[in-house]
Amino acid sequence: MAHQHSASPSAPDAARRSERSRLAIYDAALALVAEVGYPKTTIEGIAARAGVGKQTIYRWWSSKADVLLEAFLDLGEQAARAAGQEPHAIPDTGDLAADLKQVLRATVDELHDPVFEAPSRALAAEGVVNEELGRRFVAQLLEPSLQLYVDRLRSARDAGDVRADVDPRIALELFVSPLAQRWLQYTGPITYDYTDTLVDYALYGLTPR
Amino acid sequence: MAHQHSASPSAPDAARRSERSRLAIYDAALALVAEVGYPKTTIEGIAARAGVGKQTIYRWWSSKADVLLEAFLDLGEQAARAAGQEPHAIPDTGDLAADLKQVLRATVDELHDPVFEAPSRALAAEGVVNEELGRRFVAQLLEPSLQLYVDRLRSARDAGDVRADVDPRIALELFVSPLAQRWLQYTGPITYDYTDTLVDYALYGLTPR
Repeated sequence: MAHQHSASPSAPDAARRSERSRLAIYDAALALVAEVGYPKTTIEGIAARAGVGKQTIYRWWSSKADVLLEAFLDLGEQAARAAGQEPHAIPDTGDLAADLKQVLRATVDELHDPVFEAPSRALAAEGVVNEELGRRFVAQLLEPSLQLYVDRLRSARDAGDVRADVDPRIALELFVSPLAQRWLQYTGPITYDYTDTLVDYALYGLTPR
Repeated sequence: MAHQHSASPSAPDAARRSERSRLAIYDAALALVAEVGYPKTTIEGIAARAGVGKQTIYRWWSSKADVLLEAFLDLGEQAARAAGQEPHAIPDTGDLAADLKQVLRATVDELHDPVFEAPSRALAAEGVVNEELGRRFVAQLLEPSLQLYVDRLRSARDAGDVRADVDPRIALELFVSPLAQRWLQYTGPITYDYTDTLVDYALYGLTPR
């Protein structure tokens, strides 16, 4: 921290002001996209709602997609911390089923959180019809969290708990995608029982053993 | 057919005209929702594009959601016939894996069909942020086709090919939802190899046997 004190006396205040502005911009961006949708959300609108100048936003980000991407990353980290988890890890207790069930239950909670729901839906809807945006958010937001499942399934494969010929990137979709589809398309209720069942079916299969 | 001949001489012509109008209205509705999205699609716009009076549409349907619902049902039936399938059945050859793979391969073809893609994406996107529309289209369009998998999995359960304690309505999501998510969110390529793999993973599980 010594290098901070070596800056001008006003630096800590400026850093606090910047941090407040950054969080206000995230809040404004998430609220706007939830209320008016992605196409009608503008940098001007975000700036007005956050109470900052448009140039403050352009100094830190080059587009509304960039602002929203970082706002969502921040939201995901907040949610993980609120759930008492490391933002970027799936536990490895040695019990694969239990570890996957725990993470999916936390995801169920997150999907039911109104702070998360409206902006996420607005952005997911835009991604369905706007391939460039869809691919960008998947690459930067969704895929990194799916890779955590890849890591966990690889370590399970190394431990002999998953078959050697299983592709972890496809395997994770057996329990992640059903939950995503129920959330996106209202195809069924989202509960702990449901995600526990998905994990059991995926790990042990539908056919008799 | 005798009762048709007992009608007035102009009845067959009127029926042909009605059928032509109905198909023109479906085409117009699907094209418009693909081009301008669901919120900006109107009965007036559909009528103008189909070359029919607004009252013709209101005589047969009560809302744009109703028109689109039937247009999609018709599109699905056309696609099934083009793929050489009965529109409302999953084959039961006694080989569950082969039957599921065949139907999912046909779905892969349908998802790659540009006639299907743009209007389906526009409607799916609207359903993500418009819960009433989303639930309605799921209930009337998606759920009936999912029930075909329920039927096939039930008969497999009766034949001892699926465990007795498996809930078929959840089980089908292990291979249907990953394909849906890759299509909706651009999370990965959609190929026959991919859907074949999903079926194998779901039926035999990820853990060693």
